[in-house]
Amino acid sequence: MTDRYASFVQTGAGRTLVKRLGLPDPPRLRRHTPGDPLVPGPVLLGSSTGGRLAEPVGKVLTAAGVELVDPAAATDATARFAALVYDATGITDSTELRQLYDFFHPQARALLPSGRVIVLGTPPAECGSPREATAQRALEGLTRSIGKEFGRGVTAQLVYVTKDGDAGTPVSLESTLRFLLSGRSAYVSGQVIRVGAGTATAPADWDRPLDGQVVLVTGAARGIGAALARVLARDGATVVALDIPAAGDELAAVANEVGGSAVQLDLTAPDAPTRLAQHLASRHGRVDVVVHNAGITRDKTLGRMDADRWDSVIDVNLSSQERINDVLLERDLIPAGGRIVSVSSIAGIAGNRGQTNYATSKAGVIGLVDSLSPVLRERGISLNAVAPGFIETRLTARIPLMIREAGRRMNSMAQGGLPVDVAETIGWLSWPASGAVSGNVVRVCGQSLLGA
Amino acid sequence: MTDRYASFVQTGAGRTLVKRLGLPDPPRLRRHTPGDPLVPGPVLLGSSTGGRLAEPVGKVLTAAGVELVDPAAATDATARFAALVYDATGITDSTELRQLYDFFHPQARALLPSGRVIVLGTPPAECGSPREATAQRALEGLTRSIGKEFGRGVTAQLVYVTKDGDAGTPVSLESTLRFLLSGRSAYVSGQVIRVGAGTATAPADWDRPLDGQVVLVTGAARGIGAALARVLARDGATVVALDIPAAGDELAAVANEVGGSAVQLDLTAPDAPTRLAQHLASRHGRVDVVVHNAGITRDKTLGRMDADRWDSVIDVNLSSQERINDVLLERDLIPAGGRIVSVSSIAGIAGNRGQTNYATSKAGVIGLVDSLSPVLRERGISLNAVAPGFIETRLTARIPLMIREAGRRMNSMAQGGLPVDVAETIGWLSWPASGAVSGNVVRVCGQSLLGA
Repeated sequence: MTDRYASFVQTGAGRTLVKRLGLPDPPRLRRHTPGDPLVPGPVLLGSSTGGRLAEPVGKVLTAAGVELVDPAAATDATARFAALVYDATGITDSTELRQLYDFFHPQARALLPSGRVIVLGTPPAECGSPREATAQRALEGLTRSIGKEFGRGVTAQLVYVTKDGDAGTPVSLESTLRFLLSGRSAYVSGQVIRVGAGTATAPADWDRPLDGQVVLVTGAARGIGAALARVLARDGATVVALDIPAAGDELAAVANEVGGSAVQLDLTAPDAPTRLAQHLASRHGRVDVVVHNAGITRDKTLGRMDADRWDSVIDVNLSSQERINDVLLERDLIPAGGRIVSVSSIAGIAGNRGQTNYATSKAGVIGLVDSLSPVLRERGISLNAVAPGFIETRLTARIPLMIREAGRRMNSMAQGGLPVDVAETIGWLSWPASGAVSGNVVRVCGQSLLGA
Repeated sequence: MTDRYASFVQTGAGRTLVKRLGLPDPPRLRRHTPGDPLVPGPVLLGSSTGGRLAEPVGKVLTAAGVELVDPAAATDATARFAALVYDATGITDSTELRQLYDFFHPQARALLPSGRVIVLGTPPAECGSPREATAQRALEGLTRSIGKEFGRGVTAQLVYVTKDGDAGTPVSLESTLRFLLSGRSAYVSGQVIRVGAGTATAPADWDRPLDGQVVLVTGAARGIGAALARVLARDGATVVALDIPAAGDELAAVANEVGGSAVQLDLTAPDAPTRLAQHLASRHGRVDVVVHNAGITRDKTLGRMDADRWDSVIDVNLSSQERINDVLLERDLIPAGGRIVSVSSIAGIAGNRGQTNYATSKAGVIGLVDSLSPVLRERGISLNAVAPGFIETRLTARIPLMIREAGRRMNSMAQGGLPVDVAETIGWLSWPASGAVSGNVVRVCGQSLLGA
């Protein structure tokens, strides 16, 4: 569970050794504590010529109490920023990509530790010409490279904002900007996030963005699920914590801790969806947020895998999610403004040796998001997934040392993530304010080198 | 240029050391030589219940002289296959994914070295329900895991075949099946390939699939470009080899070797597109295939990068491709049935430290494919890209030893690819028979671990 190397490099002797031997240098990441200011310093906000988002973004950030600096006024070479935010939506041809260089080159070393780079673009599919779509798609190469290059806990993201509907207005963008600028996104980097059309509702208090929401968390007894229950409750949610009967004691402890309720249920039982629906209907009359976090691994190479390992993993990790969604949606228990968040995995993106069953199930979760999110959008419900990378849990603590060290270091943060990092990301996707964010698969992997 | 370790592990002493120390074990890959049979052994062809592709695929392969085996008849546990081909289009729900296990589990160790796994599916966006789309998307987790698990030079791909038009008929599918089964695809694994609607023309002789085609190769003087000229000429093409005047001698040597012509031209010159168009028009009256292979790197971290490094990389690698396409298309020099193939890079997918300029340009190439291919489809022209991973060239030979070794081994083949591997892949995309393959970005990376 603990990364002793990461602690060691923060000591005097550790720092000396890291420098002398050129060892990986995992920084201490800025994480969120309620009451924190959104950013620990000023934000440089720039725009390409004709960009449509710099103005609404400037309004959002100013209203949020952020000190904004204009690039034309940033002449002090010693100035340090908490974030570099750039509106690239004005770039309509590859020859105009030079504006990115002009903004980022002079400020490449001006970011504070755990600083943020956010580039805003137009979804290539919405662009008016192949030339514009090409230039907008090129942005991804820049942000992914910056994420690998800047180090010191700096994250870099590309946010594609639709031209349609009311996105591009402050209320649609605000939840995503707040998540990405804050310590909540400590372990999210190198991602492409799409903000589309959809109804977003700003909270009365951004420190309690889930106030009044009824949230179901499956697999809540331990690990990421337990962290989820805590983060969602901290943010104002009423948590319904679900796990298998065998985990009943741990589940009860989590539910008590967060002031929520516990449901003992085997999700693979044929009557599980209806029993769950009945419970939610009778206790709360609805469920605003469903987080499909329950998942299992049964690793074996395919030639040595018995059929039960295949079947159980597919059923728990994928088919049961489908059955539960269908029953909850049929019975109208998820109201307009509702959220569904599924947990996928980078194994579902990249595949993994010994995990044909697990990777198939987790790739299916991505298919679920892709195919069901457009259908749910019409009902005002969002559907997204997170794909965790190397997260420090009891499971990863059992991985042999050298493989564990490789997994921990092979990402832009040079360390594993914490369950809370996954929980914060799911939290953001669950907020009423995130209604314009749907159909995304967001990796929580510190920009792991592993990919597809 | 040479991978001495890969040669060493083929020796007696090498094999002993690899086994004792658990070192990486790069297999000798099966590569294509004209006259080779398509596969060096029988092919097991299976189908999910109701699959629509097993029958046309069976016809194609039988006509190509392949010995097909039915899974029901594969009772001999010692039988070895050159390929396992599975039609998964009948799977319409996650609960039916079990059929994959039933087919692959008993045969997981039955593949010959450099064997092939090909799973055929329906594009999720064309599926009739979210359930079906989810199950079809799940296939990707299986094939990517198999690619990482099977070893010994085995490759695994997922081929999504449209329900529309005449795809699914033998002629549309044949070029892709032949490429994937043959040694031409030695270093392509873990890919998702889409076969859509489009006119495909089978060649008179599959050993000369480019007979009579006029092909332009930019950056042809050395490395991948020179390998390209050789492979395309071997396959029957008339090659127009282009490079900068400074590379004139090497270019002339390549052009002479392949019986083609040489064009000395700086692609970034303002009049380059029109001069090139005039040359092609006067010499050939057309160009059937355009391969945008010319590319440069000018690596520096963003803070240390001068503006010229940014501008030149974007211009050579991206903007010049756009300008040339536009002029050749305006002047109707690329006829219906024409092909454009661009060279991207895994750096354009995953980003890379010190390569913000290069990664931006190569991500732009992906945008070019995404945005322009639907427009060109209406003219009967296909547009695809390849994204090479670690390829053994003069450039990679200059990388420091330890980094080079990491790059070489961090893929499912445990070795770098050869320029010919990229060339064979571009060749396949260039064939008149590949008209149904458009809008793809195919990695030639041995299923590199690096991704996005």
